[in-house]
Formats: sequence, C-alpha cells, structure tokens
Amino acid sequence: MDFNAQLDAALKRLHDEGRYRTFIDIERQRGHFPKAMWNRPDGSRKEITVWCGNDYLGMGQHPVVLSAMHEAIDATGAGSGGTRNISGTTVYHKRLEAEIADLHQKEAALLFTSAYIANDATLSTLPKLFPGLIIYSDELNHASMIEGIKRNGGAKRIWRHNDLAHLRELMAADDPATPKLIAFESVYSMDGDISPMEAICDIAQEFGALTYLDEVHAVGMYGPRGAGVAEKLGLMGRIDIINATLAKAFGVMGGYIAASAKMCDAIRSYAPGFIFTTSLPPAVAAGAAASVRHLKTAQHLRDKQQENARILKARLKALGLPIIDHGTHIVPVHVGDPVHCKKISDMLLEHYGIYVQPINFPTVPRGTERLRFTPSPVHTAEDIDRLVKAMDALWSHCALNRQQLSA
Amino acid sequence: MDFNAQLDAALKRLHDEGRYRTFIDIERQRGHFPKAMWNRPDGSRKEITVWCGNDYLGMGQHPVVLSAMHEAIDATGAGSGGTRNISGTTVYHKRLEAEIADLHQKEAALLFTSAYIANDATLSTLPKLFPGLIIYSDELNHASMIEGIKRNGGAKRIWRHNDLAHLRELMAADDPATPKLIAFESVYSMDGDISPMEAICDIAQEFGALTYLDEVHAVGMYGPRGAGVAEKLGLMGRIDIINATLAKAFGVMGGYIAASAKMCDAIRSYAPGFIFTTSLPPAVAAGAAASVRHLKTAQHLRDKQQENARILKARLKALGLPIIDHGTHIVPVHVGDPVHCKKISDMLLEHYGIYVQPINFPTVPRGTERLRFTPSPVHTAEDIDRLVKAMDALWSHCALNRQQLSA
Repeated sequence: MDFNAQLDAALKRLHDEGRYRTFIDIERQRGHFPKAMWNRPDGSRKEITVWCGNDYLGMGQHPVVLSAMHEAIDATGAGSGGTRNISGTTVYHKRLEAEIADLHQKEAALLFTSAYIANDATLSTLPKLFPGLIIYSDELNHASMIEGIKRNGGAKRIWRHNDLAHLRELMAADDPATPKLIAFESVYSMDGDISPMEAICDIAQEFGALTYLDEVHAVGMYGPRGAGVAEKLGLMGRIDIINATLAKAFGVMGGYIAASAKMCDAIRSYAPGFIFTTSLPPAVAAGAAASVRHLKTAQHLRDKQQENARILKARLKALGLPIIDHGTHIVPVHVGDPVHCKKISDMLLEHYGIYVQPINFPTVPRGTERLRFTPSPVHTAEDIDRLVKAMDALWSHCALNRQQLSA
Repeated sequence: MDFNAQLDAALKRLHDEGRYRTFIDIERQRGHFPKAMWNRPDGSRKEITVWCGNDYLGMGQHPVVLSAMHEAIDATGAGSGGTRNISGTTVYHKRLEAEIADLHQKEAALLFTSAYIANDATLSTLPKLFPGLIIYSDELNHASMIEGIKRNGGAKRIWRHNDLAHLRELMAADDPATPKLIAFESVYSMDGDISPMEAICDIAQEFGALTYLDEVHAVGMYGPRGAGVAEKLGLMGRIDIINATLAKAFGVMGGYIAASAKMCDAIRSYAPGFIFTTSLPPAVAAGAAASVRHLKTAQHLRDKQQENARILKARLKALGLPIIDHGTHIVPVHVGDPVHCKKISDMLLEHYGIYVQPINFPTVPRGTERLRFTPSPVHTAEDIDRLVKAMDALWSHCALNRQQLSA
C-alpha cells in the first residue's frame, strides 16, 4: 500500500481544482486591529488591514476582555488541568455559564471548547436522549451541525434552504408520534441571510418538534443585549436549544448551548465531546464572560457595525459590484470561480494591503466562490474608502462583470 | 411527544446507577497548586489539595508559561478572530507547530482546539484519504479515538487490550491489499499501563500498516525531551501519526498531531473538525509553546514526578490497598462500585480536604470504579503523607478489603 502516493493524489485534487488552501500568517497588534502585520513566506513583513476576521466587534482587543484574562492568569494560572468532571470545573466556568444563561434567558448553559464541538456533540447526543428522533436540517447548516447530525446514523431529513413548504412537507410525511427536531441557523455566515425564524417556530409547534438554533454569527451583534436574532425578534422563548460561539463577536474562544436546566444536564451527562475533554482555560472563560457582559449594554458597537456594513454595501453596489445583500453585517462579493477568487484576494493583499480570504468549496458550493468582507466598528471611514477604491480598480483590471452579476 | 419526561428518564438512569456526575467547583491559586479553594454549593469555601488533576507537572502555573501568555495578550489581544484559513493563522500558531514537530522529530505538526478533536477529526478523515482503510483499534482506546473511528462508518476491528496475538489474527484475516492502520495509546490513562509499542510497530510493518499513537498521557513526562513513550523507547520514527494534548502535562489547552508534512497537509485540507473552527487564542498557543520548549530540558520535573508516584504507590501498597501499578505516574486505587467510590471521594474532600474525583462508567468499565491519583512534582512529602493517612483511616472506617483486592 503506497500511502504517500494516495496523499499526493488527495492533495493534487485540491491543486487541480484551484482550492488548495494556503494559510496567511498574520500578527494582530493589540489596539490597532483591524490593522495587522502580514508575515510573508520569505520572511518579509507588510502592514495590512484585516477584512475577513470574525472578531466582528473588535472585542478581541477590548480592555475589559484583556484585563479579565490577565487577572485570571495571575490568580489561577494557565490551563484548567482537567475535564469538567475531573478537577476542571472552576468558578470562571460557572460564572461564564451563568452569564450566558442570563443572556439567552434560559435556565442553564453548557460550555464546550468550541461551537463546532457544541454542535457536533449536542446534535449527536440528542438521538440517545430521544430514541427515534428525526432531525430536520436546513441544507446550508454549518459543517459542525452536519457532522453532529450524521455522526450516529440517526434519522435526518434535509430541507431546502429556508424553504418552509419543503420543511412542512417533510415533517408531514413522517409518523406524528416520532420525536422531531428542527435544526437551523439565524444568520447564515456565507450569504449573510436570515432564516424565517418565527415561521419555523410555528411549524415546530404544529408538529410538536424541538427547535435547535445556531446563533454563531449573530450573538453579540443582534438583539438589545446581543443575544442574537431570536432576541431581536422576541423569539428566544420558542427556541429549545441555542448554540453559539465565544470566538467571533465575543472575541475569545469556546462555544456553548443554552437551554433548560434538564436539557443541559442531560447533554452534560451523555455527550462524549463534553465529558472527555479538558475544559477551557480559566483565563479564556474569564475573558469571554467579560465580553458577554460588556456587550449586553454596548449597543453603540452594534450600531457602528451595522452602519459600516451599510456604507460598504452601498458603495460597492454603486460601483455595480455583485454583492449579496441580506441586510446583515456580512458583505459577500460574488466571484464564482476558485482561481479568480484566489487571484483577486492575492492582488488585494500584495498590492493594496487588504486581507480578505477567498472562500471556496467546501466552505461554499462550487460556482459560488466569493470574497467575504466583515466590516466592524473598528474599521474606519478611511479603511472603507481604501477597500472600495481597491475593489473598483481590481474589477476593472480583471475585466470582471459589474451589473450583470448583481444579486 | 413529552421531551421532558424523556430527559427525566435519561437522568434517572444515571442517578439509579450511582453515576450521576456532580461537578466540584474549584479555584486554583497560582503558585500554590496543588492547593486550591473548593467552593461548596452553599457558598462556603475550604482549602483542598487537588489529587486528580491532569496538570501532571504543574506547568499550568509555571512562570515561563504565564509570562508567554501575558505577553501574547499584550501584543495581540484575546482570540485569533478566525479559522486557520480565514485570518486565524498567526505566528504564535506557526511557532507552536514548529516546536511540536521538533519535539516529535516529525516534518510537521497540526494544531487542533483539543486532543479530543484532533483524534476525532484525524481518524475520521483518514478513510477519505485512503479509501477502504481498515482501522485496528485497541479496545481501551480513548473515547475520542472511538468516536473518530466510528464517525464515517469506515471499516474497523477492535482488538483486545494490548493483545498482540489478537491484533495479528485480525490483521491476517483481512485482504493483504487493503490499506490498514493500527490505532493505540502509549499510556492508558485509567490503569496507567503501557502498550507493547515495539511489537505493535513490528506487526504494522509486517502487514504494511500505518501506526497511529495517542501520547496524551505521556507527552512532557516520558523520554529525554518529554516527547513521550515512543521517544523513551526510541520508536518515534516508526510511528506515522502521533496525537497528543497541550492541556495535561503542558498545562494549557489544545491538541495536535505530528506526522509527515504530506500527512499533515492532507488532514489540514480535508478534516472538517480542523477547517471549520476558530483557531486557538494566540495567548494559548504562546503559553503552550513555552511549556513544550521548557519541558524539552526540564528533566528534574519528570524525575520528581516519577519519584512521587513511586513513593505514593509504595506507601499505599504497604497498607494493603488495592492499587493498580504499571510503573507509570498514574496511581489508581480500585474500589469496584460506583456508590462506594463516590462516598469515599466525598469523605476525602469533606473531612480531609483531599480532592480525588470518583472514576465511574463510562470513563471506566462497570465494576472497575476507582479513585485515580495523579502525583506531580508540586505535591510535597507532607501532601503525600496526609493522603496516605487519610486513605488508611477511610479504608478502615469503610471496612474495605485490603490484601484481597490487591492487583
């Protein structure tokens, strides 16, 4: 068995399709984000502006977060030293869980090392708790939800993206006595579109199904206290399990679910991905708790983010660029080809000091390759202006279509 | 569908079997570990000694680790702000991967948010790279390996723990042309026994199989530079993929694989659990790198840990306590019943300020419930003495067997 030849073949497939990923090595500088230093492979350095980060509100450099982390390191040290059950539960974890439960107005919350594992572990454990459970999953759900749903071979139905009629049709075709769960997101991260949440809750109620909502790209940014789109729409009480991350708008690391005390207790007790892994470092939990707390009142950051997103979209639209606009903070520009997409990204970085990663398959479907900009409250008017001018110049240089591609 | 009734039933099963887990809320105090404060549910506090942590060498409070974390927070902020591919690769991640690759004398290393996800993601991705792959897995492999192997429904064979004849028998029964991989651990964490690594490598060679070794409970602690048991035995070159953690002896958080550049590149490119998740915070990567580097020369910590383990085992044995001794740093005391196990643990905590978590099913098989002590270089002779005396008193108080149960 020639394992190396098989690895070569697997890697060649990626190169052939123009979707081999090259990591860009950057060094953020506290207080100067979205500015960062790019370390080129040849060792040279160049100052760049990050336009594709998921530190959506700049909380990754906020003094309240950094102070909380420093203090926790000074007080308690580096790692937690154990799983949650074996010496790895600390006051920092408990405080953070309480902060999150309060945010989502749920009885309890449960921390995971990432929202990826929170999705994977929770969705793969629910069928153990509710034998026969059928999970109805939006076709554009995140990879971590898909992995969790697939994991134990439980029953699943994939409904077309945001297609309520299809969802109802699938649910109606199944035995009414079978336990059911609808899994969906609030803001889909690659198009920035929002699910028809109230109608989904209505369908769930009609069929007696649980609701599972991924708010990873919404927490911190939507709702009067930053609890997400469900809060903004007044629907939190109709969501049984909310999943989200501490690594994007909250700027640190980790993920969680928020749900009833019983639900959290059962997941805590049955999910291998929760039980058999070291808990988050206390400093990470402390930083995340400070961030969640801060964003409960920092409406100005949400307002500024939305304003910057509106300005960027309006200006790119005015140039006829094919942007996808669903009224959220995410600004995708459609390219539609992995090689072109990478080329434009490379030119932006090299010639303009603008860093936006090309988004190719499997992150998005083939043919929908894109540049995905994430304006934040810490991007200045000047940053936006330089980006718009660079895109204009490159679009002309590459002779790319304007109006025709517009969504 | 009464979901709450089903949750009640699932939780009742755990209570009925005496294996419902209650988290002990502790607060380590930097510089004083293994001492910590226990926060009781009623709000009162008591100083305790942690005897079940996996911060095996006390690196979680080592100044070189904490300084590196503070410096990284000051320099760059809290979270990385993205996945490795989308703005989340930093010099801190690259330095840590280089440090790990050097540790294991491999061409490359690949970071994950935990060793759990490193195992899960890697083992579930290998069958995509090597179609038809059969994974031969030791029956006592960690939950994360089992989950990874099961995930995509690939072919697997479970061999009896450390049973070379059974392994060979299973491999010989399969088509010689099929790609094969043997997955095993170096130190099994619950008994503290070590796999017959050289013989396993011989069998792998005989059948042209890849070797996958989990060194989670060995890195930092075995081998002249702390690379694990494979280093100690001079076998690193015969292991294709080494998996380990940064959260136990290295005292911080995160996990990794170390392997050939091609293997790491392929896993990096194909594993959803690597691709679709925010990378470790730079401060965590910086702390872990400092720890790995420090332990490459800090032989005195390894020596002291082994010495403390030997002393503790000798003293518990002298009292006739049923300890399981395989010559490693892990000191399990057999109880064999989940309710007794929890009771003794509770009494140690409440009456003696000694914190050791009861280890029950599913972490260990039913009937093998145990207390698992983890002596470290930062436990003093006095700590050991107090533990031994407490165990002696409790064993008498509970009228538990001595010699008869001895392993």
